[in-house]
Amino acid sequence: MDVRAALFRRRSIKAFDPDHEIGEAVLREIMALALLAPSSYNLQHWRFVAVTDRGQKQRLKEAAWGQEHVGQASAVIVVCADPRAHLQAERCWSASSPETRARLAARIRNLYDGDERLQRDEAVRSGALVSMALMLAATEAGYDSCPLIGFEPGRVAQVVEMPGDWIAVMLVALGKRTREPAPKPYQIPLEEVVKLQSFKGRGLGA
Amino acid sequence: MDVRAALFRRRSIKAFDPDHEIGEAVLREIMALALLAPSSYNLQHWRFVAVTDRGQKQRLKEAAWGQEHVGQASAVIVVCADPRAHLQAERCWSASSPETRARLAARIRNLYDGDERLQRDEAVRSGALVSMALMLAATEAGYDSCPLIGFEPGRVAQVVEMPGDWIAVMLVALGKRTREPAPKPYQIPLEEVVKLQSFKGRGLGA
Repeated sequence: MDVRAALFRRRSIKAFDPDHEIGEAVLREIMALALLAPSSYNLQHWRFVAVTDRGQKQRLKEAAWGQEHVGQASAVIVVCADPRAHLQAERCWSASSPETRARLAARIRNLYDGDERLQRDEAVRSGALVSMALMLAATEAGYDSCPLIGFEPGRVAQVVEMPGDWIAVMLVALGKRTREPAPKPYQIPLEEVVKLQSFKGRGLGA
Repeated sequence: MDVRAALFRRRSIKAFDPDHEIGEAVLREIMALALLAPSSYNLQHWRFVAVTDRGQKQRLKEAAWGQEHVGQASAVIVVCADPRAHLQAERCWSASSPETRARLAARIRNLYDGDERLQRDEAVRSGALVSMALMLAATEAGYDSCPLIGFEPGRVAQVVEMPGDWIAVMLVALGKRTREPAPKPYQIPLEEVVKLQSFKGRGLGA
């Protein structure tokens, strides 16, 4: 499936076949592709909890404001990110030369140390980049998805035993759609969304 | 190009052909596809400044720690996001029924009003989701890319005249690669990155 088709096919699906089980092999294939997404300084801030167990999905559903499709999904991926991933810089460059590793580790520390807002931004940013890759890889593999931010972070953390100082960036529900989604809601026109040269410039295509 | 191939082909490219100009039609095509990315409650927090002007690219390069490939890129997309996008809820649901619009607007206000951290997270999250879609759409269109977070936010805002209360989520440089990138640096093993059922669970594929 080409990228264009996958982007069109991907919609936030709110009803999944509750009886469809996703195999570990497929899940692995999707996740391996998602992990090709970039992260700042290769820090790979992300970890994922793939929830396929019925009881666990039910608990996640309850932590996600009772949204039915969380319980129906074949898998719910909890996208976790570590705002202190910069402390793992040496490991993330361990396949490179000692000089490169030392140079980058110093630069990374210099950039992130003490800047909690940037640390959090980075965790969210990396987590979202990989989530988009994940949804497109899932689409190509024949799965539908729904990204969710509507949940109680503390409860989700508790359900999947995520350390309290990590961030649950989003949930990505994966499954087989049981009905077609409504047409996309209002989209701001492209000419308004993309400007040339300056925020106040001419709209692209205008 | 299928999603899998695009994910493999996409690498953070650090050297672009400075003479390659990207046409507005191609840019429009790439951006239209990128805009198929989801945003929380369809709030479309994003705006983009597509910088193709040589002088503007030079200024962005200076604001981006002098990184050469920012100046070489055919276009540098400044991904801007509005942390107060929730205030535009009615507009973003203006194609839906008055009941749906009112219901969602109330829910959106209730969620975001007064929670500045969530507002910022959402802007960064939406901006990153669309950036990943943008890079994959660019890949399919025959362009290489590089996502950048190494820049002085205030200077970038000034160069592209972005309002000070918006967030420059990242820059995405687009262009034609002039050399192949080095192999990917160290990647944390999949079994460590993806756990089943719980953060402390068995690794996927382990």
